[in-house]
Amino acid sequence: MLRVPVSELVTGEMTLDEEASRYAARVHRVRVGDELLLFDPVRAREAVATVLAVDRSKVHCRVGEPRAAAIRARRAVTLVQGIGKGDKLDAIVRDATELGATRVIAAETARGVVKLGARGEERMRRVRRIAVEAARQCGRGDVPELSGPLPWEEALHRATDPIGLSLCLWERATEPFGPKLRSLAVGQSLTVAVGAEGGLTEGEVDAARALGYAVVSLGPFILRTETVAAAVLGAVMLTSA
Amino acid sequence: MLRVPVSELVTGEMTLDEEASRYAARVHRVRVGDELLLFDPVRAREAVATVLAVDRSKVHCRVGEPRAAAIRARRAVTLVQGIGKGDKLDAIVRDATELGATRVIAAETARGVVKLGARGEERMRRVRRIAVEAARQCGRGDVPELSGPLPWEEALHRATDPIGLSLCLWERATEPFGPKLRSLAVGQSLTVAVGAEGGLTEGEVDAARALGYAVVSLGPFILRTETVAAAVLGAVMLTSA
Repeated sequence: MLRVPVSELVTGEMTLDEEASRYAARVHRVRVGDELLLFDPVRAREAVATVLAVDRSKVHCRVGEPRAAAIRARRAVTLVQGIGKGDKLDAIVRDATELGATRVIAAETARGVVKLGARGEERMRRVRRIAVEAARQCGRGDVPELSGPLPWEEALHRATDPIGLSLCLWERATEPFGPKLRSLAVGQSLTVAVGAEGGLTEGEVDAARALGYAVVSLGPFILRTETVAAAVLGAVMLTSA
Repeated sequence: MLRVPVSELVTGEMTLDEEASRYAARVHRVRVGDELLLFDPVRAREAVATVLAVDRSKVHCRVGEPRAAAIRARRAVTLVQGIGKGDKLDAIVRDATELGATRVIAAETARGVVKLGARGEERMRRVRRIAVEAARQCGRGDVPELSGPLPWEEALHRATDPIGLSLCLWERATEPFGPKLRSLAVGQSLTVAVGAEGGLTEGEVDAARALGYAVVSLGPFILRTETVAAAVLGAVMLTSA
């Protein structure tokens, strides 16, 4: 059944918004009588809908009873991601959505080359659209909560959970990541903090340590920051399954 | 120390080839007396060299005794990767190199949209250059062996190791990946076979099973093929560390 993301689910008759209508009508050519699975990824709710009418740019449907999304992330996993130049945050959020992260906090670091300033909001809106699209593609009924950009320490502070495990990745750390991952209890929340390209300063690592983060290394190879996110979130998702 | 990939290491005096010379002289502006770490990623050997002369396009150096590469992959991990359109193989090989794969075999599948034919060799040469560049960037002294494109079954057959663990990823499998990963013994080799975009046919999955592959699922989310490679290789690298 075609999955269509919506910003709100209303039981009864409803007209899909412009973007959802275009996706259903133009891209997938839905017809009267077709069934759709509408999903609100922010609230992790979904409902089956039947198409009642399709006009040039609008799809009208009758929406059934909403229910909790059937397929969603199982563990609370927060990624604190240092932001840098280019489209890396886009790729990282796409991967993070597919790999079950429940929250991504964009963070500004000393060596991250961009301070987004006023463009931050615009950038985060684009990243939110990417997350919703990734959720639709991978069949996930929820979406990571996205926030930031925040200063590094503030992001770390906001991301910690007193009963969760918090890890800060640093290539010069001596403690390895693997045993920490194995120590994760069923259902325990996890926070992983990753610098931008160029890495973290010692001060930034000290700040993480002071906030209760264990500072760990991923091994002898120096990974690109976007590879770090995929490798770490992949390891978490695959070893807790 | 600047790491420079070379296709052959010769003890004594040596002139770097055109590409290596350009990289050292133009990109990094090395000077007489500088030390370089030359590495031959195919043979996983490296040697310290001292720059003797730099002219417009050539770097001459004196090369010390070659030794086994200090930082290299620790486990034999083969990725059998179904190939599709676009640059996905490039991105996958870059990730696989950073994440410690020791062999990548490109495979043609029924739903992979490209049959490379005569262009296969050219494509594989480009992919080899990408692997060497990724090895240089991540500080790895070896490089995955790259081969193919081969028909799916032939690639599977070539990739198996009688005392290794062989896994074929399939979104409709019922057995999960996690416990298999945990069953991997220290030093045991691993083969992971992944389809192209569009997935594997039942016949292709049956062929893997007949060759001794366990057919496993990565969970309820449908991942893009490039995310699969990064997540799986990341999980292997991080849980064996």
